Amino acid sequence: MARHPGARDLLDDAAVLDGLVLTHDMIAEGVHFLSGDPAGDVAWKLIAVNLSDLAAKGATPAGVLLGYALTADPEWEAAFLAGLGAALAAYDVPLLGGDTISLPVGAPRTLGLTAIGRTDGPAPARSGAMAGDALFVTGTIGDAGLGLAMARGDRTVDPTLLAAYRRPVPRIADGRALAPIVHAMMDVSDGLLLDAARMAEASGLAIAIDLDAVPLSKGFRATLGSGRDARLTAATAGDDYQLLFAAPADIALPVAATRIGGFASGGGLSLRDGADSVALPARLGYLHG
Amino acid sequence: MARHPGARDLLDDAAVLDGLVLTHDMIAEGVHFLSGDPAGDVAWKLIAVNLSDLAAKGATPAGVLLGYALTADPEWEAAFLAGLGAALAAYDVPLLGGDTISLPVGAPRTLGLTAIGRTDGPAPARSGAMAGDALFVTGTIGDAGLGLAMARGDRTVDPTLLAAYRRPVPRIADGRALAPIVHAMMDVSDGLLLDAARMAEASGLAIAIDLDAVPLSKGFRATLGSGRDARLTAATAGDDYQLLFAAPADIALPVAATRIGGFASGGGLSLRDGADSVALPARLGYLHG
Repeated sequence: MARHPGARDLLDDAAVLDGLVLTHDMIAEGVHFLSGDPAGDVAWKLIAVNLSDLAAKGATPAGVLLGYALTADPEWEAAFLAGLGAALAAYDVPLLGGDTISLPVGAPRTLGLTAIGRTDGPAPARSGAMAGDALFVTGTIGDAGLGLAMARGDRTVDPTLLAAYRRPVPRIADGRALAPIVHAMMDVSDGLLLDAARMAEASGLAIAIDLDAVPLSKGFRATLGSGRDARLTAATAGDDYQLLFAAPADIALPVAATRIGGFASGGGLSLRDGADSVALPARLGYLHG
Repeated sequence: MARHPGARDLLDDAAVLDGLVLTHDMIAEGVHFLSGDPAGDVAWKLIAVNLSDLAAKGATPAGVLLGYALTADPEWEAAFLAGLGAALAAYDVPLLGGDTISLPVGAPRTLGLTAIGRTDGPAPARSGAMAGDALFVTGTIGDAGLGLAMARGDRTVDPTLLAAYRRPVPRIADGRALAPIVHAMMDVSDGLLLDAARMAEASGLAIAIDLDAVPLSKGFRATLGSGRDARLTAATAGDDYQLLFAAPADIALPVAATRIGGFASGGGLSLRDGADSVALPARLGYLHG
């Protein structure tokens, strides 16, 4: 199939065309969101996950196109559109167009969003890490994973963690500040370990991660503690939408971020916890399929 | 909701941003295509209907992003991807990226495509028709409607008409040639009468269409004849993907097209058949919902 150089072999989260950064994500009921999730939160998340892909390219959102498959539920639709409007207003992004179709009653709601961003600098790929680079991540990891357990009713609700799952915040300003100085960047959507392994593989390098360095929030620590199992849970949960990036270890960072590992020649992912080597878990992340 | 001027109030088929034309269409099994339609034809149609929106803006396709919801059917997927590759190769359009998700078995297949085109001239809106303009259409009308009846098993198959339904051909070169000289342009997707009424409404004008002038193919005439009922069937069938445009009646057209009506001040749609006034049918087009 014909592929544009800007497509980056379809391995990146976004394509670059004529100075615009383009990304498209789909979400489906029962797969990426729960039937009981508030419709406004589903809309917010649809916007947020796509803007997060733009953030990872250092792009400023310029507009979105919505693909919206309705299922004859006016109440859900009204709440969805209200949430969509709120998210677009929060990020000052216009709705450019799109398509609305009707699905048979009972079909899973399926939503697609194309987000378009502008960049006047380089759009870092996930494949640019260099041997000797450190691996950094913004914010904290694992909050959304605990929030999902709370949304499912498996845990007592902590509103901050639930919000991390339902209303993630794309790191747009961070991405813009980091893009000119990083070697590789992507967002953490499917799990820190899985996404870090992907960055290493795309860059043709080995990556070693120190679990002890994985940044955990106060709410996460209060719920699961900060032992090795808790850190493994955080690092494999996904839905974090933080920025993961490779940069020289001694660089002065323009944003707050935590150094969690480093790249070396070779291949594969290895884990340690302080001085201890840690076996890889069977599941490195959360694949929505 | 925040809307970009390029969004044209979401009433147009495509948005314009930084010289790029952007459009997004979704199609779903059981709604826009039949479960029994060959997967390769579904892929072709997904590409064609989106490129047709670009054609109506006079844009040259520059790339597409695919949103693809799989349903655990490797044979269907392989045929779909083969058809996608063939359509992209036929139009020399690269796949820039997109997203693949898994739906539960039994869910209707749902596909979204964002097509991006380049234009160095004006991108005609559907709202620019002027009183006194003539209404023109390229090609012939009604072939795909008959092809759909054939695909459903309701009629003996004529391969040309079936192909008009399953493998429509976007009028990209025609659109590029017409864009600089027309006042308004759109593609005929939901039915000639319905789409013409939309152009008139968006332009704040009345439109009168002469059924007798609606261009019918030889295959259509051989199947349904060319009487008034046949012409009404053609003009309300949809899926034609011809270009419908408003231009001064005496203009020299750079492409083959048929004059089928005219705009006047006022509002609404009126039909005639030669000298006779014809009552509007209850259904002006085919709304997929």
